[in-house]
Amino acid sequence: MPSGYDGRVLQTLDRHQAGVGDRVAIDSDIRYTGTIMPRYHHSDDSHIVLKLDNGYNVGVSIRNITGISILERRPSAPPSAPPPEPRSDLPDILLVSTGGTIASRVDYRTGAVTPALDAAQLGESMPELYDMANIRPLRLLSEYSENITPEHWLEMAGAIHRERSGYAGIILAHGTDTMHYTAAYLSFALAGCDTPIVLTGSQRSSDRASSDAALNLAGAVSAIAQGIPRGVYIAMHHTQSDDDTAIHHGTRARKSHASARGAFRTINGEPAYMVRGGVLERHTHGDYWDGAPYSPAISVDRRAALVKYHPGYDAALLDHMAEGRRAVILEGTGLGHVGREAYHSIRSMIRRGIFVGMTTQCIEGRVRMTVYESGRDLLDLGVTPLRMIPETALVKAMWAASRDMDMRDTMVSEMASEMV
Amino acid sequence: MPSGYDGRVLQTLDRHQAGVGDRVAIDSDIRYTGTIMPRYHHSDDSHIVLKLDNGYNVGVSIRNITGISILERRPSAPPSAPPPEPRSDLPDILLVSTGGTIASRVDYRTGAVTPALDAAQLGESMPELYDMANIRPLRLLSEYSENITPEHWLEMAGAIHRERSGYAGIILAHGTDTMHYTAAYLSFALAGCDTPIVLTGSQRSSDRASSDAALNLAGAVSAIAQGIPRGVYIAMHHTQSDDDTAIHHGTRARKSHASARGAFRTINGEPAYMVRGGVLERHTHGDYWDGAPYSPAISVDRRAALVKYHPGYDAALLDHMAEGRRAVILEGTGLGHVGREAYHSIRSMIRRGIFVGMTTQCIEGRVRMTVYESGRDLLDLGVTPLRMIPETALVKAMWAASRDMDMRDTMVSEMASEMV
Repeated sequence: MPSGYDGRVLQTLDRHQAGVGDRVAIDSDIRYTGTIMPRYHHSDDSHIVLKLDNGYNVGVSIRNITGISILERRPSAPPSAPPPEPRSDLPDILLVSTGGTIASRVDYRTGAVTPALDAAQLGESMPELYDMANIRPLRLLSEYSENITPEHWLEMAGAIHRERSGYAGIILAHGTDTMHYTAAYLSFALAGCDTPIVLTGSQRSSDRASSDAALNLAGAVSAIAQGIPRGVYIAMHHTQSDDDTAIHHGTRARKSHASARGAFRTINGEPAYMVRGGVLERHTHGDYWDGAPYSPAISVDRRAALVKYHPGYDAALLDHMAEGRRAVILEGTGLGHVGREAYHSIRSMIRRGIFVGMTTQCIEGRVRMTVYESGRDLLDLGVTPLRMIPETALVKAMWAASRDMDMRDTMVSEMASEMV
Repeated sequence: MPSGYDGRVLQTLDRHQAGVGDRVAIDSDIRYTGTIMPRYHHSDDSHIVLKLDNGYNVGVSIRNITGISILERRPSAPPSAPPPEPRSDLPDILLVSTGGTIASRVDYRTGAVTPALDAAQLGESMPELYDMANIRPLRLLSEYSENITPEHWLEMAGAIHRERSGYAGIILAHGTDTMHYTAAYLSFALAGCDTPIVLTGSQRSSDRASSDAALNLAGAVSAIAQGIPRGVYIAMHHTQSDDDTAIHHGTRARKSHASARGAFRTINGEPAYMVRGGVLERHTHGDYWDGAPYSPAISVDRRAALVKYHPGYDAALLDHMAEGRRAVILEGTGLGHVGREAYHSIRSMIRRGIFVGMTTQCIEGRVRMTVYESGRDLLDLGVTPLRMIPETALVKAMWAASRDMDMRDTMVSEMASEMV
């Protein structure tokens, strides 16, 4: 575990054979007793950070230290217990871990974030899950979701496609930052997958009292155990309350709060399902995939871009973006507008065969380009209005660009319950 | 007024000396009686669109027309009435019109959108406003707000600065698409202006039954008449209901619905004021501008850009964006993250002296870059966390880049009640 200490501070610690997590007494102007904490990277570089017995942290300057005595060594982690024997009366669920907060653990004695839990430990840390399902863990990635790339999407889709057989459902533990982008990708790449796929994560790490990890994971398990139909979903806290898990269509949700537990919202509607007091409630009309064949199409092409338009937007950026691009998704204003200043570049992109689709930067509501002159002008230029949230439109364009399909036809046809 | 007709259809109409708005009888396979509507640009080009007396529109093919008789000519608009005499017991308000839906009128007989109303007609079409204030109209621009540019911001700020003297307040009638960008600009450029400035607009044009124009304008007038303190505000419907007008700080609101009347929301908080049943209620703490001097600083520099980050974002676009840019505002994921793939380009921008600020694409919540490794990495690269919504951060950067001020100091110091 990186301690954050270097230079003279690290030398001081090394000289006394002390390290992060050790309980020590430091003799300086006075005697400090406490646990050595990892040094926060941006903090002062001439102090040892000590968590005192009263819970407060202090920085002890190394300048005045006369001695460090080890009172107790950092305890090692307890050995993992094996998961319980599978029960024939319970459904089998595959729990794929990819990283994110749900797979992090903060050691509150030291304050350090320990290396990512894998799916086995995730299951273990919430033994109540084994009363609902037999959970087989699979560790696939260990990335915070801001680092998830389209190539990771391929890995996830590939693993689910290969491993899905025999499972009542698959849970993907994923960081929340870009969970909705991944969910949208899996929705298109694994369209109609014969096993329901539920992404879940947490906004607070699993060992914090306020953690949402257990409820979110339990909600995902519960939805599958109660036979949620095929589809790709996001299962997360509905509000700040621990009572309900919202189950969103993977193509219709956004992370709408940076830190709150009820961060995900279905745009222009209610969540497709809810787990309330452990009971799965259906809110969506009909079963989108009912009778549809499973048609995996696992490929991606990065040559799509998303542009949030604003007053003073430099149209030269669009001209540059056109180079080597297959599709540009505009996040326009209002009902789907951009200013006249951008028309020339848009016309030129469309003439070069680049697909230009319109979404709205207003969070709610729909694109309607026939109402105002600007919308009609853009339709005349060949811009295609899209009935999708911008994030889903981008991901769909990256997917469509990799298939041998007409881009415009693909973007205006509903393929994975994405139309809002 | 453009009729939308051209080619053979226009010839047919001209031959019979008929035009949009005329009530006619068209003899074809049967006889159609109704009013000629403007042809919608994207519709079929061989039909005349007729609004029948039962209210439905039909397209009559010109192929079979044997005659068109004019039953009644399109009526001309009634002459404008002069505004009432100013009353000494009422406050004086300057109503500046810039265009937008609030200044449009749909002629329901013909379906056409008539040329923009100017501020005088706006006042006239809502005579009840003259019971609350003496309203002096000033027509400044006639643009839908998707076409508003930073140069228009200068015009608006200049007009307000020049004309403000003697008024209890200034109302700016503005399209809603980019109203929040303009409001943010005026907040910085006219910081502490000695006259309150209230932007208002409408989501439905003023002559529609469901129009919000009258309530929004009345809310703005009412807030000024009741002595709202100095500041730049957005006054719009609070919800779909006609009961309340929300008065948002101009630096903290977003258009959050493409079409609903209650489209504007204060992010991370409640509106600063409300007008409920005609009474101004204060919700904000303290008076932001209390005692502050008026410091107009009307200039702008377009060399700032806003980037919404997403998985698979092409870092080469950042490299290109760096050319000639003074500031780049990132709309990151979660607490303020972008993927590792973008680090190299960000480092290189910062080394070149470009200011790189971080906001979040989650609608609510705040940037906190010390929680996760990614945030700390980005702090190390020199990215500055911002306590503003992305739109305000962009506008502030465009303004700050035009001033002789340290960009980073300016961006992290509160200057116009913008911190959320």
